[in-house]
Amino acid sequence: MKSFMNKLKSAWKNNNSLVCVGLDPDADKLPACLSESAKPIFEFNKAIVDATHDLVCCYKPQAAYYAAADADDQLKMTIAYIQEEYPEIPVILDVKRGDIGSTAEMYAKEAFERYNADALTVNPYMGSDNLKPFLDYAERGVIILCRTSNPSSCELQELVCDGKTIYEHVATLTRDKWNYNHNAALVIGATFPSELKKIREMCPDIPFLVPGVGAQGGDVGKVVKNGTNAVGTGLIINSSRGIIYADKTEKFAQGARKAASELRDLINQFR
Amino acid sequence: MKSFMNKLKSAWKNNNSLVCVGLDPDADKLPACLSESAKPIFEFNKAIVDATHDLVCCYKPQAAYYAAADADDQLKMTIAYIQEEYPEIPVILDVKRGDIGSTAEMYAKEAFERYNADALTVNPYMGSDNLKPFLDYAERGVIILCRTSNPSSCELQELVCDGKTIYEHVATLTRDKWNYNHNAALVIGATFPSELKKIREMCPDIPFLVPGVGAQGGDVGKVVKNGTNAVGTGLIINSSRGIIYADKTEKFAQGARKAASELRDLINQFR
Repeated sequence: MKSFMNKLKSAWKNNNSLVCVGLDPDADKLPACLSESAKPIFEFNKAIVDATHDLVCCYKPQAAYYAAADADDQLKMTIAYIQEEYPEIPVILDVKRGDIGSTAEMYAKEAFERYNADALTVNPYMGSDNLKPFLDYAERGVIILCRTSNPSSCELQELVCDGKTIYEHVATLTRDKWNYNHNAALVIGATFPSELKKIREMCPDIPFLVPGVGAQGGDVGKVVKNGTNAVGTGLIINSSRGIIYADKTEKFAQGARKAASELRDLINQFR
Repeated sequence: MKSFMNKLKSAWKNNNSLVCVGLDPDADKLPACLSESAKPIFEFNKAIVDATHDLVCCYKPQAAYYAAADADDQLKMTIAYIQEEYPEIPVILDVKRGDIGSTAEMYAKEAFERYNADALTVNPYMGSDNLKPFLDYAERGVIILCRTSNPSSCELQELVCDGKTIYEHVATLTRDKWNYNHNAALVIGATFPSELKKIREMCPDIPFLVPGVGAQGGDVGKVVKNGTNAVGTGLIINSSRGIIYADKTEKFAQGARKAASELRDLINQFR
């Protein structure tokens, strides 16, 4: 199995795309045409993946949607499907896990063995020993929350200590301490473009997962201008609702393809 | 269904106990006598619960152990069993979730509807809008990471901003902003007894979940002295490995009872 970072670099290049499709299927919002399916979430995801695989650099299923719907099996099927059919596209399991070392080992096992994800998202609040069990899987990616896209992220993340905000401390720790296997990345919300610029200057080589374009209102032009690295990549720009619910009829997969294609082109205008 | 806080207060009183048993069964460490069972994790938990229910104030299954073992069904069975047989003992689902609002709603649904837990643990790094979907379940408890028991918790939690550490900011936000339904509690590690004292002074009425006695080395006397509230309760002192693996033979449930009883008595010496 190719490492997350190598898969990501290939997908950026081969698909000429920084788009990540968030597979966050709310069981209550699926198109009516899937209502008879025994595995409607999987069928929904499969159709979207089949329609978009040549337009994206990543897929990112959000675990909460599957957990709430008691659909862990369909999450597993979705990841396995992508890896079998489109092995060149990495899958990020968005779980935002974090716990003491012995428990973090179990969460690493969940993400990387049970679900076989190429990467996962983690929360840095508990520090290094909570991240090490994930980072030790050198071939997998570990994407650390830094400056999140939601309005209240300021409450703790913007507090200033020793002249640096908390999210800058997280970026510094990631660059200097947590990236020992060259498999770390950062989450930085599209809703904070000036922060994106500042952290890109601090961390020229670390990929950023950027949620918050589309439904959350982030500006694509500013994200690309401020967040890309020296070779015009470095970003995994996620859109979930804007792509998967672009069309709510039985033509949802075509709608998703159109939306993913438009987002890719819009991003590429600014690269 | 009685609220988490009311169940907790009753259990503190009726069992004269501040002990929480952490149900963190590593599938590879179960007693050999359970190896033929179709649901060994559930059987293990059931025997421990039956042997300890009159000695504890809470049970706390750690979700990561079930997730790693693909044993979500046995987690659900465990919680349902406790609530049917011992409805006076609240169950905390230890998941340390945290995400943007729309996703947090899904995690709340997972914990409070799919698993029907009385309370869950959450991570505050993303701020208020990530906590609100949990706190809005007024009858359920929301236990917020503040000063965690692990060695690296200092890296971010001890940073000082405006004269207060980050964990003091979390305690202040919890007291002044997040406790609008009187259902919030804080996680403070037994390994940091002076912090426990400081936060008890700041938050006289908020319950603390205290991991880190036993395997992690926290001092029970200092925890009780520094952490109890004005009426000698206020603490949920968790022990996992020290109780569930006290005896590794077919007498594991009796061993767990003995260990839970000893911990309760040790704690009560200092109250």
